[in-house]
Amino acid sequence: MPASLAHLTDCIAPQLQAVDRLFAAELQSRLDCVNVLVRHVSRFRGKMLRPCLVLLAGRACGDVTDAHVTVATVVEMVHMATLVHDDVLDEAELRRKGATLNHLRGNEAAVLLGDCLISHSYHLCSGLDSQFASRLIARTTNEVCEGELLQIENRNNLELDEETYYEIISRKTASLCAACCLLGAKLAGAAGDVVARLETFGRAIGVAFQIQDDILDIVGDPTTVGKTLGIDVEKGKMTLPMIHFLRTAPHEHGLLLRSLLEGKEPDKAEKIRHLILPSRSIEYARDAARAQVDRARSAIADLPDTDAKRVLDTMAEFVVSRPM
Amino acid sequence: MPASLAHLTDCIAPQLQAVDRLFAAELQSRLDCVNVLVRHVSRFRGKMLRPCLVLLAGRACGDVTDAHVTVATVVEMVHMATLVHDDVLDEAELRRKGATLNHLRGNEAAVLLGDCLISHSYHLCSGLDSQFASRLIARTTNEVCEGELLQIENRNNLELDEETYYEIISRKTASLCAACCLLGAKLAGAAGDVVARLETFGRAIGVAFQIQDDILDIVGDPTTVGKTLGIDVEKGKMTLPMIHFLRTAPHEHGLLLRSLLEGKEPDKAEKIRHLILPSRSIEYARDAARAQVDRARSAIADLPDTDAKRVLDTMAEFVVSRPM
Repeated sequence: MPASLAHLTDCIAPQLQAVDRLFAAELQSRLDCVNVLVRHVSRFRGKMLRPCLVLLAGRACGDVTDAHVTVATVVEMVHMATLVHDDVLDEAELRRKGATLNHLRGNEAAVLLGDCLISHSYHLCSGLDSQFASRLIARTTNEVCEGELLQIENRNNLELDEETYYEIISRKTASLCAACCLLGAKLAGAAGDVVARLETFGRAIGVAFQIQDDILDIVGDPTTVGKTLGIDVEKGKMTLPMIHFLRTAPHEHGLLLRSLLEGKEPDKAEKIRHLILPSRSIEYARDAARAQVDRARSAIADLPDTDAKRVLDTMAEFVVSRPM
Repeated sequence: MPASLAHLTDCIAPQLQAVDRLFAAELQSRLDCVNVLVRHVSRFRGKMLRPCLVLLAGRACGDVTDAHVTVATVVEMVHMATLVHDDVLDEAELRRKGATLNHLRGNEAAVLLGDCLISHSYHLCSGLDSQFASRLIARTTNEVCEGELLQIENRNNLELDEETYYEIISRKTASLCAACCLLGAKLAGAAGDVVARLETFGRAIGVAFQIQDDILDIVGDPTTVGKTLGIDVEKGKMTLPMIHFLRTAPHEHGLLLRSLLEGKEPDKAEKIRHLILPSRSIEYARDAARAQVDRARSAIADLPDTDAKRVLDTMAEFVVSRPM
């Protein structure tokens, strides 16, 4: 969790610490070279958003168990594996204000460390009593991969429509958040309809989170966001503000954005920012993210009023207000 | 299996066909772009060595079940994922006489397709009744990753000793073969000592297989082997013949190999080949591979005399006689 939200997680503090310990213990290797790499990747860790979702969904629905801690660790590893492999994909030069692994040690090490994280996540998960979590996590990682492939397939596709945009982000980002909340509720023994509502909550805030990420890639302040911005533009990735802009802006503005997106000017991200900022397209994307937050909150509105539920509500709000 | 061995697998032919069907069915996607990529990777498929190990180990110890078919499909997917990610690592321009995925579609697609294969392999595995296979496969993929990382760590390390060389190949290649045989026996209900013997068989032929691969990288005929040779040399990977050569060749020959390995001459692989061929180092490596084959065969010598056992023996011999 970001510092501003840290006090909110008091109700799951011991379990979050247990996640930290399990994370380190699972990745501990007899080989020094593996430990060196893993220490490096630990610097990628930040918000612990996904472990919090597992633990809070569990707490909001019943008791939090050792299985919750295991699954929370698993999803953090899965998430970090995607970050590490994204760095191969994105050639991002900065992430979380540190050098990325591929930059520092080459693509090979980044590919292998990501593989290592994924492998350990399944190893942990397969130690649970039932196959349920393993199966769901595997189905989710299928979705994440397919979302990323669909995104690559649509690189530089200026005609990308909203429907496909939502399919991409639902798979690549929201599916893991949905799985976190689903598993948290399920492992706490929640009834089927409650499990489904938590899943809806997770998916909606995942979608909101990604839209906000896409907005920040255009309007964010790099020193606050802590990673390279304008990456989407550089990599030909169409995001919601740009899709809206191309659909609604005056004809000549649309042509200008197209020529900027297709060109290779060094400061194209900055020019795109200045073109889009005065339009209604950022606001349109913000409204879309807000609608997802509302959807998330109403999905869990009927849960008993607990600390955990209140934190879930606050997290949902934070997704669209966060500066990072 | 290579054509020359194909008739040997008659005793598991229906199960091998079932593996093919399950492989295709599991990877079938609603997204066209995923199916296109998967079709491309299907061209990587060749020997089906690992599925054969699962099925033959099962047959040699008892009955072959649906679970064997599932696990055989899982290990083939895991193996193909490592091939696809190895192509990112190796920058090999040819594999199995086809363009590699990273060459054709970029590193991004190769990373994601590998991730996709791994994810689907776990998805399949988590559908089994017990977690045993999932847990073992995950432990094995941990070993494979660590072996690859240890290999990268020792790139251009001309002082690499045999012990570390064996640790690398045991992890990155032999551990999966060992897991195949172990799981095949276990799923057929074999007793603990028999399971252990099959595991020994698999590990030993895995080590032999990798030594043979390393030999072929130096002495093989590219048109027969069907992939780019001299890759080990290009990537600074020390293999058994080179380790032996540096330890035993006349001082000035050793110096020459060192300067070739450290240099960037375009035809360095060819020069190294001509330097090592007249020495005893290729023979030394062949002897080492032969010793592993003998170890493998003696591990299963006491099994009942079945078709499956005879094929395992033949496969072990083929590992060191294969031209590809």
